[in-house]
Amino acid sequence: MLEHLRYADGALHLLDQRVLPLEERWIVCESPAEVARAITDMVVRGAPAIGVAAAYGMAMAAAQGLDLEKTRALLLASRPTAVNLRWALERLAACSAERMLEEALEIHREDVAINRAIGEAGAELLPDGAQVYHHCNTGTLATGGWGTALGIIRSAHARGKLRQVWVGETRPYLQGARLTAYELLVESIPCALVTDSTAASLMASGRVDAVLVGCDRVAANGDTANKIGTLGLAVLAKHFGVPFYVAMPLSTLDARCPDGSQIPIELRGAEEVRGYRDTLWAPPVEVHNPAFDVTPAALITGWVTERGLWSPTAG
Amino acid sequence: MLEHLRYADGALHLLDQRVLPLEERWIVCESPAEVARAITDMVVRGAPAIGVAAAYGMAMAAAQGLDLEKTRALLLASRPTAVNLRWALERLAACSAERMLEEALEIHREDVAINRAIGEAGAELLPDGAQVYHHCNTGTLATGGWGTALGIIRSAHARGKLRQVWVGETRPYLQGARLTAYELLVESIPCALVTDSTAASLMASGRVDAVLVGCDRVAANGDTANKIGTLGLAVLAKHFGVPFYVAMPLSTLDARCPDGSQIPIELRGAEEVRGYRDTLWAPPVEVHNPAFDVTPAALITGWVTERGLWSPTAG
Repeated sequence: MLEHLRYADGALHLLDQRVLPLEERWIVCESPAEVARAITDMVVRGAPAIGVAAAYGMAMAAAQGLDLEKTRALLLASRPTAVNLRWALERLAACSAERMLEEALEIHREDVAINRAIGEAGAELLPDGAQVYHHCNTGTLATGGWGTALGIIRSAHARGKLRQVWVGETRPYLQGARLTAYELLVESIPCALVTDSTAASLMASGRVDAVLVGCDRVAANGDTANKIGTLGLAVLAKHFGVPFYVAMPLSTLDARCPDGSQIPIELRGAEEVRGYRDTLWAPPVEVHNPAFDVTPAALITGWVTERGLWSPTAG
Repeated sequence: MLEHLRYADGALHLLDQRVLPLEERWIVCESPAEVARAITDMVVRGAPAIGVAAAYGMAMAAAQGLDLEKTRALLLASRPTAVNLRWALERLAACSAERMLEEALEIHREDVAINRAIGEAGAELLPDGAQVYHHCNTGTLATGGWGTALGIIRSAHARGKLRQVWVGETRPYLQGARLTAYELLVESIPCALVTDSTAASLMASGRVDAVLVGCDRVAANGDTANKIGTLGLAVLAKHFGVPFYVAMPLSTLDARCPDGSQIPIELRGAEEVRGYRDTLWAPPVEVHNPAFDVTPAALITGWVTERGLWSPTAG
């Protein structure tokens, strides 16, 4: 399996997702502040992966004898939307300083096992010869390993059920074009890259049997925050009668959050939309760049968890 | 008014839309073959603008004593979806060789007048303080001048009715980010650039009073081919109860085409999606890149023409 996040010699080593797939550069974080910075800057991204990274950040603070409460606050503030960050930090807060590294390693191992269980449960739901549409990156790179929505794709491919993955490029940060396409290409899973605007015509022409997405935070009523564009895909799926599944580790469920209106949505900078890295194509116009949107529960066919399908009414 | 297309000294001068807004480079086409190439390569794009350019290409063929039938076929094949190309070439075919330049100039002048009439008719439909969502580029650069959907925006702004334009960036070719943002910025029309995936969350939060798009070909039943992403916007607008208007010069109506299934959809190259110009971000994965999609008539609130609202039942 592709490796992108490992704790070694007291430091967190991260495969820099800002420059993949054209460069494979590792960033070494030697302090919790460096871990928080790597999360904010999206060296590591994806709700489960930032939970794992934050756990290692706490373990580092414990090993270095830093103020644990301050470190927790610093890591919690690194990105606002994904609840896994808070969940991981709360698990660590319940440990003694001596046990923190062990707990972080356990969270990491657990996450891979959870993803494999989600993969198996989701693969069951797909028809033979399935064509699926996938948004953003929810794979190994977004998690401790294997992936959530992309874990379902991996599991379906392993069972020989998968005909095609439509890879939505996911502007502005291009997680689909850069990271999902890279993961699928490495494993020879049949796929084609499309712009986000192409989803409607694919669904209209019957070439999508299911939409698969991950999530950053799910409210108690099932409203789901995920990468910007998810809401639009859910509306399209409803219109065209295509099942819309959210792959959701139970750690992404925020039982304290009653509904989607309570989920903070991160607004990011203009430069992500005006161009790509050093390449600029737009004039210096104002930009509105929310990183996430909220999909109402009513538009979601099912939430696939490590314990099978969850639903807000049953939950 | 911004100038981007002029016929002078027997040549067609085109502001190169591939490199706007960061570079203002003019391309001079001295033969109809060069005009056809400029259309194919998208030096000039937008259904009305390529109709005008093709008309000048025919005038050039007449002036140079070239085979008019061969030239017509060459220009007609330069791009497949927009019907304005065929319409302009048929108008020229009905002229004597001596009259062709005059007819091309007339088509160009007429197009500006048509756009102004569309602008006035469309501005009537918007509420005061309107926030509108616009896709692709339908402005001066896409037409002989003023613009179709962007003409409505210009007219509404001139009347003081316009609060905000959400400029959809329009991947892969970024006509919104590059061209529409540029036109609006030049004229100080209030706007913000967004990724195409942001439209749903804007509509969900009540920040869109109307969606305005252009069109490349409208079938007799009202099915409308336009830039990829239009269909998705129409589905979203229906879902969120937002009016969805197509700005349509009557020359874009293809009465010979019964419905959308008969409209040819251009598939373009992978390189447009794998990156932007010389900047590559995706691995060498397969790409599916249709340049247009077809929106069924039932999703469209109204077609705004130079003679007011058109509808397929009345038409």
